[in-house]
Amino acid sequence: MTTQIIEAKNRRLTPEMEAVALKEGVSKEEILDKVASGRVVILKNNRRADVIPTAVGEGMTVKINANIGTSMERSGLAEELDKVKVIESAGADVLMDLSTGDNIDETRKAIISATKLPIGTVPMYQAGKEAIDIYNDISKLSKDKLFSDIEKQCKDGIDFITVHCGVTKFVVDQLEKQGRVTDIVSRGGSMLACWIKATGRENPLYEYYDELLELVREYDCTLSLGDGLRPGCTADAGDRAQVAETMVLGELVKRAREAGVQTMVEGPGHVPLNKIPAMIETIKVLTDYAPLYVLGPLVTDIAPGYDHITAAIGGTLAAYHGADFLCYVTPAEHIGLPDVKQVREGIISSKIAAHAADLARGNKKAYEMDYNMSVARKTLDWEGQKKYAIDKCVFHNVADGKPCTMCGKYCSMKIFNEYFSKDAAGMI
Amino acid sequence: MTTQIIEAKNRRLTPEMEAVALKEGVSKEEILDKVASGRVVILKNNRRADVIPTAVGEGMTVKINANIGTSMERSGLAEELDKVKVIESAGADVLMDLSTGDNIDETRKAIISATKLPIGTVPMYQAGKEAIDIYNDISKLSKDKLFSDIEKQCKDGIDFITVHCGVTKFVVDQLEKQGRVTDIVSRGGSMLACWIKATGRENPLYEYYDELLELVREYDCTLSLGDGLRPGCTADAGDRAQVAETMVLGELVKRAREAGVQTMVEGPGHVPLNKIPAMIETIKVLTDYAPLYVLGPLVTDIAPGYDHITAAIGGTLAAYHGADFLCYVTPAEHIGLPDVKQVREGIISSKIAAHAADLARGNKKAYEMDYNMSVARKTLDWEGQKKYAIDKCVFHNVADGKPCTMCGKYCSMKIFNEYFSKDAAGMI
Repeated sequence: MTTQIIEAKNRRLTPEMEAVALKEGVSKEEILDKVASGRVVILKNNRRADVIPTAVGEGMTVKINANIGTSMERSGLAEELDKVKVIESAGADVLMDLSTGDNIDETRKAIISATKLPIGTVPMYQAGKEAIDIYNDISKLSKDKLFSDIEKQCKDGIDFITVHCGVTKFVVDQLEKQGRVTDIVSRGGSMLACWIKATGRENPLYEYYDELLELVREYDCTLSLGDGLRPGCTADAGDRAQVAETMVLGELVKRAREAGVQTMVEGPGHVPLNKIPAMIETIKVLTDYAPLYVLGPLVTDIAPGYDHITAAIGGTLAAYHGADFLCYVTPAEHIGLPDVKQVREGIISSKIAAHAADLARGNKKAYEMDYNMSVARKTLDWEGQKKYAIDKCVFHNVADGKPCTMCGKYCSMKIFNEYFSKDAAGMI
Repeated sequence: MTTQIIEAKNRRLTPEMEAVALKEGVSKEEILDKVASGRVVILKNNRRADVIPTAVGEGMTVKINANIGTSMERSGLAEELDKVKVIESAGADVLMDLSTGDNIDETRKAIISATKLPIGTVPMYQAGKEAIDIYNDISKLSKDKLFSDIEKQCKDGIDFITVHCGVTKFVVDQLEKQGRVTDIVSRGGSMLACWIKATGRENPLYEYYDELLELVREYDCTLSLGDGLRPGCTADAGDRAQVAETMVLGELVKRAREAGVQTMVEGPGHVPLNKIPAMIETIKVLTDYAPLYVLGPLVTDIAPGYDHITAAIGGTLAAYHGADFLCYVTPAEHIGLPDVKQVREGIISSKIAAHAADLARGNKKAYEMDYNMSVARKTLDWEGQKKYAIDKCVFHNVADGKPCTMCGKYCSMKIFNEYFSKDAAGMI
C-alpha cells in the first residue's frame, strides 16, 4: 500500500488528488506540489473505498470538523447517529468520533457505516479509558494496548487520528517549571502527562514514533499531532509550555513527511484576539507549514453557553492568518455533552467562520455567494436569498418583492428602488 | 445650559466626568482631556436627571447598544417594554428606540420612563414616516417637521440622536457615478437620498447644520453622525461612496466640536474581515478620532438567522482596531423584527465581542474576569464559574467538584489534579 504523499513525491496523480483539485478549483500541478510538500493532506484511509477525499491545507478552502461520541454519562448510539445525519445535512466536512462510553468499537463501526465523510478518532481515549475503568490509574496504560487500539481503528477505516506525541518528558518538565493557570485541558494530553509523571518514562507515542509511522502508513491514515499543551485559558496562551510542545511537533512533522505519512498539526485553544495572528504564524513556521487544525481559538473564557460564538470569532481570524481546519465548538462546550440541536448550532457557527475566512482570503466562489445573496437581498428576492443562505431554514413570514417586518414600508431597499432606477452595479 | 465638551475645554470637571472616570478606572485628567478633544463623549441629556452617564470613546471600555422599537407590522408597546427589562438584565450599556409604529411619541416617553440607560433615537424616522404615511412620497418631508421632531425628542430627554447629515448632494452624486450592489441600506440615509434626488435640494441636516448644532447643544444631546452610505454588502465595503460620506462626516465633527456639541460617528455595516483593520483606521483618521459607533461589521452576507454571530466576529476585530461602541445585531437581522428572546441573544453576542476586544486591548478588569473564571474552571468550582460568566443562566446538571457530562471521569482537569499537586500558578 502507498500514501498520497508518497505518490505525490513521485509525481503520480491519484484519483483522490484529481477529485480534490476539481472540488477546490485548483490545478492538478498545485495539488501534486502541495501534497508532496506536506502542506496539504488528503483525508482518506486507503481501506475505506467510499469516503469523500477531503483536502486540508494551504490554498484549500477552510474545512470544518464536528465532534460526536458517547460519554459514560450519555451513551446513546441512536443519538450519535442522529448527530451524523445533522452533520451531513448542516454541511460539516469531517467528523470525529470521540466516544468514551460503553462499546466504543461498535459505536465506531456504526458511525463509519453511516457516513461517507472522513472520520477521525483519538485512540488514546479507548486505551486510557480501560486503564481508568479497570485500574482507576492512568499509569497502568500500556504501550501495547495503545498501539493495538490504533491499529484496530486504522483497520476499521478511520481516516485520521489525533495522537499527542508532543507531550514529552521535556514538555511536561517545561510545564512544571513554568506553572500555568489551567495546566492541561486536553484529555489525551492530560492522560499522557500523568502517565509520564507517575512512571518517569517517555511518552510511548514519542519513543516509538517510527513504529507509529509504519503502522499508520499502511492505511494512509493521516496523523493529527495533538496539542496536549494547548492553552485552556486566555492567560496561558502562547506560553513556553505551548511553544515547547509546538517545537516537538515540528520535529515530528518532518519525520512523518520523510516516512511518507500525511500529517496535520493541532492548535489552540483559548487565545485572546490580539495574540491570534502571531500565534498562528509562529505555529506555521515551527511546523514547516503543516496543515493546521485549530480547536477554537476561543477569544474569551467567560462565555460558557456561547462558545460557538467565541470560537467563531477566533476561528475566523485564525483561518484568515493561516489555519486550515476548524474544529467546531458547540454552545455546550465547558458545560456538558451537546445534544443534536447544539451540534447543528456548532456546525453553522463554524461554517460562518470558515466561509468568512475564505471570503477574506479572496476565494472567488465565496465572493460569488455573498454577491449573489446581496443582489437577491436588494431586489427583495427571498427565494434567491434562501438559495445562498448558509442555513435555509430561517426564513419565515417573508414574500418575494415585499420587505420584512423590521422596516416594513420604510424599507431602505424598497424606497431607494422607487426613486432611483439603477440596477445592481454588476461588480462581479 | 452647557455641555460636557464645553466644560471640559474650560477644565471644569462635571459630576458626570467624575462618575465615568471612576467607572472606567481612568484619571479625571484623562477624562477632561478626552472629552475636551472630542475623542470621548458622555451620553446624557442635561434635562434627564436620572440617566447613567456613559462614556464612549478612546481609552474607555467598549460599549454596546441594543435597538428596540415598534414597527407598523408589530406595534406592541408592552413587548418593547419587556425588551427594555431584558436589555437591563442582560447588561447592554445603551438603547435606541427606533419605533416606526403608531404613537411614536407615547412609545418614546414610556421607554424613557422605564430605564436609566442612555437612550438614542433616529428622529428622521418620525419625520419620514409622516411623509410616507400621509403623502406616500418621501420628497414631501419638510425641514421644519424634521427639526421640530428633533427638538421634541431632545426635550423629552433623548441622550443622543442619529442624524444622516453626511448624505449630501455630493455624496449621492458619487454613489450614482459609481454604482453599487446594494445602494443604500440605511433607512434614514435612503429617505434623504431619495429626497435629494426628487427635490434637487441639499440635505437639510447638512444645509442647516449650524442650526442643528444650536438646537442639540441646549440639551447636551450628542450627535451620532449616521453613515447613510454604509456598505450593505461585503462587495460594497470601503468604496468611494462610503469614503465620500466619511469625509463629509469628518468636516461635521470638526464643526460640532468647535460649537461645543458632543459628536460620535457611525460606521459599517457589511465588511469582509480582511478590510476591517484599514477601514476602522481610515474612518478614525478622516473623522479626527471621533468615538466610532459601528453597526456590525458583518463579515459575510450569507448568514441570515445568525447575524449576531457575523457581527460578533466583525465587532470584536473592529473594536480591537479602534471602534468604541457596538450596535448589537440580533439573529432576526435581515429577516424581521426581533422578539424578546432574540434581543437577549443579540445583547449577549455583543457583550462577548465588546469583552473580547477589551481583553485584547489589555484592559485589566477584563483580564481579571477571564483569569478568575479560569481558576474556577480548573478547580471544578461551578459556583465560581457562574459568578464570572457573561450569562449566568446556562449552568445545568453541574455540581461543585464534579466534572461535566462531556468528559465525566476522564476530565482532563480532574485527572491532572490527581497526579500533579500544584495549584493554579497565580499569574495575575
